[in-house]
Amino acid sequence: MTSVTDNAPAAPKRDEDKILIFDTTLRDGEQCPGATMTFEEKLQVAELLDDMGVDIIEAGFPIASEGDFEAVTEISKLARQSVICGLARANFADIDRAGEAIKHAKRSRIHTFIGTSPLHRQHQLQLSQDEVFERVVASVTRARGYTDDVEWSAMDATRTEHDYLCRVCEAAIKAGATTINIPDTVGYALPEEYFDLITMLRTRVPGMDKVVISTHCHDDLGLAAANSLAGVRAGARQIECTINGLGERAGNAALEEIVMAVRTRHDLMPHHTGIKTEMLSRASKLVSAVTNFPVQYNKAIVGRNAFAHESGIHQDGVLKHTETYEIMTPESVGVGKSSLVMGKHSGRAAFKSKLKELGYNLGDNAMEDAFNRFKALADRKKHVYDEDIEALVDDGVAHMNDRVKVAALTVIAGTMGPQSATLTLDIEGQSKTVQAVGNGPVDATFNAIKQLLPHNARLDLYQVHAVTEGTDAQAEVSVRLEEDGRIVTGRSADPDTLVASARAYVAALTKLTVKRQKTAQAQQAV
Amino acid sequence: MTSVTDNAPAAPKRDEDKILIFDTTLRDGEQCPGATMTFEEKLQVAELLDDMGVDIIEAGFPIASEGDFEAVTEISKLARQSVICGLARANFADIDRAGEAIKHAKRSRIHTFIGTSPLHRQHQLQLSQDEVFERVVASVTRARGYTDDVEWSAMDATRTEHDYLCRVCEAAIKAGATTINIPDTVGYALPEEYFDLITMLRTRVPGMDKVVISTHCHDDLGLAAANSLAGVRAGARQIECTINGLGERAGNAALEEIVMAVRTRHDLMPHHTGIKTEMLSRASKLVSAVTNFPVQYNKAIVGRNAFAHESGIHQDGVLKHTETYEIMTPESVGVGKSSLVMGKHSGRAAFKSKLKELGYNLGDNAMEDAFNRFKALADRKKHVYDEDIEALVDDGVAHMNDRVKVAALTVIAGTMGPQSATLTLDIEGQSKTVQAVGNGPVDATFNAIKQLLPHNARLDLYQVHAVTEGTDAQAEVSVRLEEDGRIVTGRSADPDTLVASARAYVAALTKLTVKRQKTAQAQQAV
Repeated sequence: MTSVTDNAPAAPKRDEDKILIFDTTLRDGEQCPGATMTFEEKLQVAELLDDMGVDIIEAGFPIASEGDFEAVTEISKLARQSVICGLARANFADIDRAGEAIKHAKRSRIHTFIGTSPLHRQHQLQLSQDEVFERVVASVTRARGYTDDVEWSAMDATRTEHDYLCRVCEAAIKAGATTINIPDTVGYALPEEYFDLITMLRTRVPGMDKVVISTHCHDDLGLAAANSLAGVRAGARQIECTINGLGERAGNAALEEIVMAVRTRHDLMPHHTGIKTEMLSRASKLVSAVTNFPVQYNKAIVGRNAFAHESGIHQDGVLKHTETYEIMTPESVGVGKSSLVMGKHSGRAAFKSKLKELGYNLGDNAMEDAFNRFKALADRKKHVYDEDIEALVDDGVAHMNDRVKVAALTVIAGTMGPQSATLTLDIEGQSKTVQAVGNGPVDATFNAIKQLLPHNARLDLYQVHAVTEGTDAQAEVSVRLEEDGRIVTGRSADPDTLVASARAYVAALTKLTVKRQKTAQAQQAV
Repeated sequence: MTSVTDNAPAAPKRDEDKILIFDTTLRDGEQCPGATMTFEEKLQVAELLDDMGVDIIEAGFPIASEGDFEAVTEISKLARQSVICGLARANFADIDRAGEAIKHAKRSRIHTFIGTSPLHRQHQLQLSQDEVFERVVASVTRARGYTDDVEWSAMDATRTEHDYLCRVCEAAIKAGATTINIPDTVGYALPEEYFDLITMLRTRVPGMDKVVISTHCHDDLGLAAANSLAGVRAGARQIECTINGLGERAGNAALEEIVMAVRTRHDLMPHHTGIKTEMLSRASKLVSAVTNFPVQYNKAIVGRNAFAHESGIHQDGVLKHTETYEIMTPESVGVGKSSLVMGKHSGRAAFKSKLKELGYNLGDNAMEDAFNRFKALADRKKHVYDEDIEALVDDGVAHMNDRVKVAALTVIAGTMGPQSATLTLDIEGQSKTVQAVGNGPVDATFNAIKQLLPHNARLDLYQVHAVTEGTDAQAEVSVRLEEDGRIVTGRSADPDTLVASARAYVAALTKLTVKRQKTAQAQQAV
């Protein structure tokens, strides 16, 4: 093994006021219950994050599954600007797998971590302080063999003894870590406490001035954004966050809140980020769509009410002077009025340029498929909005390679009961038709599917929302299934809510098959 | 007019470490776009807040509408523990109306406010500093004529000149205000800035030590909880907040986050609240149901993922030692497993005791109606869960006095199209039947309703979620309509998603009629 001091980095030249945005939507976000994304969805999100100016994209946890490995590999190949980062625990197998996944990236990072708090050392790892210390040195050293950009995290740092935390941070730096992350893993810290912790580390740990200090705050007490900013005030220059604050339990600090707080309060914080804020709204919608996690109406920055005013007093104020109640403009985060895009006479070229404007970059087959479905929709729906196009394309990406397709469905429902469904599925080219009754039209439809695709999954969640305004809007249906602790989601959009329900349910069942295989592989790997 | 110094209060005896929780779900929450509640819904929420230990309930803005006045009046009569507060602008008509509405309360408060920042004074009020000052003195003095408990708010305090803010706070105290509220109306403040502001006021304003200082923070930058706690650290002892963080734009500080932060970090904050935390989950569900505002899965404390773990590492940790990843228990906020309650053989007594356990207190008619609908549901659905009972009772309360009822509905839907609906409505005792087609079964159903109840409202939002797990779950449908800037919502639950859709749409149309009248009255009043 090389001597640990050999890898200590020279102080990097950098813009001292810039906050690096480290997005972990695809890792910490995707690992939360129900937020599983497909390979295609991950690429879609990564491409948007890259375009948006995210400095570092944590693309996955390569050893966790074959799917994670492939996603990190492919994102590494595609990324244009962002550093692509893979997560690894403090063992060589994890680090080697991460190193392999990121090797195609223009700029790559390995992020390795270990629990440092007494609770983690004793209950989860069953290791002594010295044993954890040895693992820190060994894992960071190993990671530096793959890339010069190595991040090390002291998991549960906010509940770690200060002396010990200083000792392991110093060791990680000496072993070659270029970013030191201080996670509030359980979302427990108060802002002034987190400020004091980062200040303590900067004061006591030799070499801390030569690395980037990073925050990773969870929102269990609703304080993730404030804690991250307190970290910055104390000298941190990287914030780990996710779109919509997705993540384990109450989630991570929300990227959009951090970025807009820094921008809006530039008068008090001399900082900036590289994020194109006009893309925040689109990022929020995409992540909400691929995870089927709804964004609360009053969510800061990206909720549908974030820029809406109702009470007479406030409306009056806004009309008289916008600044009275608005501290940032809707346009600055990409929120505009729904625009009427086109109807049934719009041609292929116009449709293609609209897709580009919406941030899509489809291959020929996907493009042709989307255009055909657009024409079919335009025949049925008077106004076709941006949101309709988005739903249609997202739906196409999700169902492109489906092994099972809903070929025909007829449902009879209402107060007379029992509700019944007649369904034809195309299963790997074979057409099969059944009839079923149920407690409501959705139950009847799902019972028909179950006859053709027998399974033991439980419907954990079923929801519908209209894609646009108006009673003729497309319905976007999301379902979530659970089987032996495995959670999968499916979604689909169609003007007929029952057709969309059938397609979403079939999509989730298909994902479940994939996940069963993934879980089996992961158990072997760990 | 009495001399302003006469009303200055003696220093009240109080528990110096207690944080008073001032809930404004029914005022600031209810006034946000789309969150309108009916009279019955407001009483239901108020009763729960009172039971939960909320110190002050801001029950409404009495002069804003007849409905607000009636709700504040009725809540004043019903409240057992909480102080009931009515909002009033800085004019005598508002204050007199608020005084009238709260007069039946055991303990009552008037909350009067005026914009103090340059933007508010110049653009909204068109008043000079001295003119605003005069209004502060006059309005607080007037309010003291109705009650000894008067709260005064410096609207947009965080953007008000410090000297002027000190001057008006001092005047309000001398005129008899017992609580001084320092709102961050636009959600603009950073925690350290808000801490400094409260500290400045405590240092400079004579008499500030004799009143309760209150925070009222909005969440536009995701910092409302942190700002409120920074206020407490600086000496504030009342926090204004709402269930689920409901409120204008990005909403207010979330009650559940504040309360659990204070409780969980008692080691760093020597404070406590009077809230029964075990009721937080029920409060969140009720407010989400009556407003049709979904709670984001990763919402702190009350989101469905707040206590859920998925990644292998975290699950492993939780199994080994709960504290590894959980800083509070699900039970402490009232989250438990769905419990199977009863089936079709359960009797009236069992049903009644279950309702009590769930926190309902129904009159004889509502009870009988709920029981009959429970029996009908139990005939159709194998397992009846707590959530089913809640949906059923909430639905009953919402539709009890409906002028229009959905008598019969048959819908044919699927891939063959066009989808069609045959509908019979009972309109004030008269039965009418029509048939309509549409772009999907929901559109067909809504078109049929429109034939019988002509209107110009636009469907702003349509969503469905399953009340429980399983494909035979009840569907809860929420719709939101907009007409000339008026926004109303309707919801209904039924195992048949289309029947629920029809009932929700009819309910929203009924609310719209009420709101048209309210708006006309409010315009006369202001």
